[in-house]
Amino acid sequence: MEYVNLDKTEGYKALQEGKKSSVKELLTPERIKAQSIKLGGGLNYNWAAMPISEETEGKLQKLSDEMDLIGKYKEILSGKMMNPGEKRLVLHHLTRGNVLGVKVEADGEDKDEFYKGELKKIKDFSEGVRNGSIKGSTGKEFTTVCQIGIGGSDLGPRALYLALKGWADGNNVKQLKGEFISNVDPDDAAAVIERLDLETTLFVLVSKSGTTQETLTNRDLVLETLKNSPIEGFVPSKHMVAVTSKTSPLAKDASMLAAFFMDDYIGGRYSSTSAVGGVVLSLAYGYDTFAALLQGAHEEDVLSTEKDIKKNGALMDALIGFYLRNIMGYPATAILPYSQALSRFPAHLQQLDMESNGKHVNRNGEKISYPTGPVIFGEPGTNGQHSFYQLLHQGTDIIPLQFIGFRKCQYGKDIVTAGSYSQTKLNANLTAQIAAFARGKDDENPNKEFDGNRPSSLIYGEELTPASLGALLAHFENKVMFQGFIWNLNSFDQEGVQLGKVLAKKVLAGCEGDEILKAYADFLI
Amino acid sequence: MEYVNLDKTEGYKALQEGKKSSVKELLTPERIKAQSIKLGGGLNYNWAAMPISEETEGKLQKLSDEMDLIGKYKEILSGKMMNPGEKRLVLHHLTRGNVLGVKVEADGEDKDEFYKGELKKIKDFSEGVRNGSIKGSTGKEFTTVCQIGIGGSDLGPRALYLALKGWADGNNVKQLKGEFISNVDPDDAAAVIERLDLETTLFVLVSKSGTTQETLTNRDLVLETLKNSPIEGFVPSKHMVAVTSKTSPLAKDASMLAAFFMDDYIGGRYSSTSAVGGVVLSLAYGYDTFAALLQGAHEEDVLSTEKDIKKNGALMDALIGFYLRNIMGYPATAILPYSQALSRFPAHLQQLDMESNGKHVNRNGEKISYPTGPVIFGEPGTNGQHSFYQLLHQGTDIIPLQFIGFRKCQYGKDIVTAGSYSQTKLNANLTAQIAAFARGKDDENPNKEFDGNRPSSLIYGEELTPASLGALLAHFENKVMFQGFIWNLNSFDQEGVQLGKVLAKKVLAGCEGDEILKAYADFLI
Repeated sequence: MEYVNLDKTEGYKALQEGKKSSVKELLTPERIKAQSIKLGGGLNYNWAAMPISEETEGKLQKLSDEMDLIGKYKEILSGKMMNPGEKRLVLHHLTRGNVLGVKVEADGEDKDEFYKGELKKIKDFSEGVRNGSIKGSTGKEFTTVCQIGIGGSDLGPRALYLALKGWADGNNVKQLKGEFISNVDPDDAAAVIERLDLETTLFVLVSKSGTTQETLTNRDLVLETLKNSPIEGFVPSKHMVAVTSKTSPLAKDASMLAAFFMDDYIGGRYSSTSAVGGVVLSLAYGYDTFAALLQGAHEEDVLSTEKDIKKNGALMDALIGFYLRNIMGYPATAILPYSQALSRFPAHLQQLDMESNGKHVNRNGEKISYPTGPVIFGEPGTNGQHSFYQLLHQGTDIIPLQFIGFRKCQYGKDIVTAGSYSQTKLNANLTAQIAAFARGKDDENPNKEFDGNRPSSLIYGEELTPASLGALLAHFENKVMFQGFIWNLNSFDQEGVQLGKVLAKKVLAGCEGDEILKAYADFLI
Repeated sequence: MEYVNLDKTEGYKALQEGKKSSVKELLTPERIKAQSIKLGGGLNYNWAAMPISEETEGKLQKLSDEMDLIGKYKEILSGKMMNPGEKRLVLHHLTRGNVLGVKVEADGEDKDEFYKGELKKIKDFSEGVRNGSIKGSTGKEFTTVCQIGIGGSDLGPRALYLALKGWADGNNVKQLKGEFISNVDPDDAAAVIERLDLETTLFVLVSKSGTTQETLTNRDLVLETLKNSPIEGFVPSKHMVAVTSKTSPLAKDASMLAAFFMDDYIGGRYSSTSAVGGVVLSLAYGYDTFAALLQGAHEEDVLSTEKDIKKNGALMDALIGFYLRNIMGYPATAILPYSQALSRFPAHLQQLDMESNGKHVNRNGEKISYPTGPVIFGEPGTNGQHSFYQLLHQGTDIIPLQFIGFRKCQYGKDIVTAGSYSQTKLNANLTAQIAAFARGKDDENPNKEFDGNRPSSLIYGEELTPASLGALLAHFENKVMFQGFIWNLNSFDQEGVQLGKVLAKKVLAGCEGDEILKAYADFLI
């Protein structure tokens, strides 16, 4: 497989020399109907309101073929060493519980069997907790699951937990309440612990390396609280499980109630479908719910192997995003779910995208000259409409938009006011925004004029369920992966976080004569 | 007072022609010690790690003087019509309960007396609820206050509520629990209502115009739930108050328990210190807490009148932000509070900044040619370090950073692990990040190389209290106001949100033959 820099490809040159199109001129009802691509879990990706003419679309297909983006995805699925920075395989697709590539062996084991084995452990354990056969140390059933983790051990699982709460409520799914502690700021743990009933809480400690500073610190804070509990017969170790790698110090900690494993081939931001998300979601909503999410993700993984960009939503989304960044020169992208349940999904995508592709070197560690990952931000609609949309509509920069919407709400508790359901109002707003951003509006008064030509895509479906949520997650994972291939960078390491860690240790050791650290530390410590 | 476009000023030309400085070269321990400016509420603004040489600083001062930024602020304080788009005064500074300018009369009343009168009403009512003399309809004391509002009626009050929760817990302040409903998505209201005990909940309905679609819809959803309550003797109207303008339909709604007023001179995103934030915060934490927040904001307002940019943190922050945007060409700014309590403060600033200055016309409604407001986003540290910081350190674009940190935590529940308190670890990380971003690190391996020169500022203080929070809020309000003056735009209207509202109504009316709306609506409705 050949890995070349984007600026060495014919396809990039052709796109740079191509005519730029106007969304306003391109957008027609026919285009809207024609330009939807099926994703997994019953979702669709629509790119009608993107500045992609038929000619540009052809060139994107050529670039995809020239760079063999699908071939590179298949290298991942086949267990090639696709994280060269850390010399690791990239196996998160295998955590969906379905083999997509050839058999992958590593560390002397069949990795598919390994992940399936962990899934089985998650199933048995979560069922035991949920049916009451595994109880707290004082004999009470667990009612709450509290995840302690940060970064990928927090953002993805938390976003998914919140995304399924309304679905579970609306479908009378038995639940354990989910709580999350992440920040090393002691106020984070204090605020959460304050609302917990320790006797009925099960903590899930998540750290792949078993050495994450924030997570170990918060574990100690929690253990201190548990140990000081005046409850008779209370045994702290019966209230905590670990999710970690087999080789980590946590794996050997016999005081834990149980341990579930992932490995070095699952990056934190890609770990939501591994035990990192699986334990907490299976405890909160049941293993079947988690399995349905995995199935949705798997469906999307399969669709992502398609070479025809008009049949591969993740690939099309990736190519369009690259076009907006490198040809149109737009520096940021907004994620705008019209679904309160997805309130923290943009924060997960912010990590997924910016940590994966916010790089200035290629796969070989050589500096590259073209822009890579954009800034990603977002809030749910309609809330954002009353906030930052002013800039999106009338600011001096163009920010491409990724809308997400569902026909039905989750709770089913909706009423008609002023002639329509709330859910209808929500989606009327979403519909209106896409058109407003694309077409703009002329006005004699420039203050009331909208230039339009603000590109957007829309992912839509019937309802946010475990399956559609899994597909949505995998769509963005695969999009980001394809963009990493286009930029010829390694989306699976994160060297950019190391320097801060080293310097923080130095500060904790008294700054070691570093006068700049000392001067700032004097303000704060 | 003269209002000219930025590109017509001598100061802008001088800055464009000036030498650009490197943060890496500028940053010294002496600079860090020297370049702090006192803000209100015991806070400080430090700009040592900004690419601002002494020469540039002099030019920024000249631009400030040439554009008479302080004079323009004083026009606001004196009650001039400073929102020309909507032909309104801009009076949020008066809501701090302290006159700063001359006496302002409008609508036939002294506005200072008007806001003070509302403050008195808030004091009396909140004390009545908190001491139990005002009870729910079944005779139980209120334990929960639930705000129904969107945009400025939600983001600011919610951010402030969350910011003070730990302070209130840590200081044993009597509390009513705060809840918030904002999104028209019916799942938002459903999720909140599910956790409420209706008998002990007081709803605060907030809409200046009294016509906000989301807010009225959510009121109706809540009222429907209240009316269907099987509790004997339950009277829904005794569980709701309004915050609105005197002229709105809500003001005349006799079914409400009480009504508190703001007016058209308080923009939504600037309304946190009016009754919009005052009612919910006084109910939740007591009027004295809210009064302390107002006092902190007032202190910062006073400091913001200083002409010397080295003594005016909001003005310096504004000028530096403009420099980064218009001279350095950076398209975004990240807000990074090292305080979990400020988890939603970046979302508030996102609205404040992007809705105020995301404009393409000047104060006279004429198109302008220079970039205005940047994209604003952010999450608390250290969480962000495990997420999007990779791009901030090693991405291909430079994103300026605004750090916020406090010496002490709020709860005071902290322990020593691995030789240090969690709060110390938190601030060691903050210290380390500023240095890492500024200085970078050389390495033979480009993947481990950090270019540095990532500019940052730091707002720091002893603790996040009502007073320091008020000052922090006012700092950013005044920063955004000064930047609006620099760009010669109107920071107080929001014409960009209108088109979407009009089109949403069209969709609800069946699309009225608009085939593009119809095509999207078919996916969603």
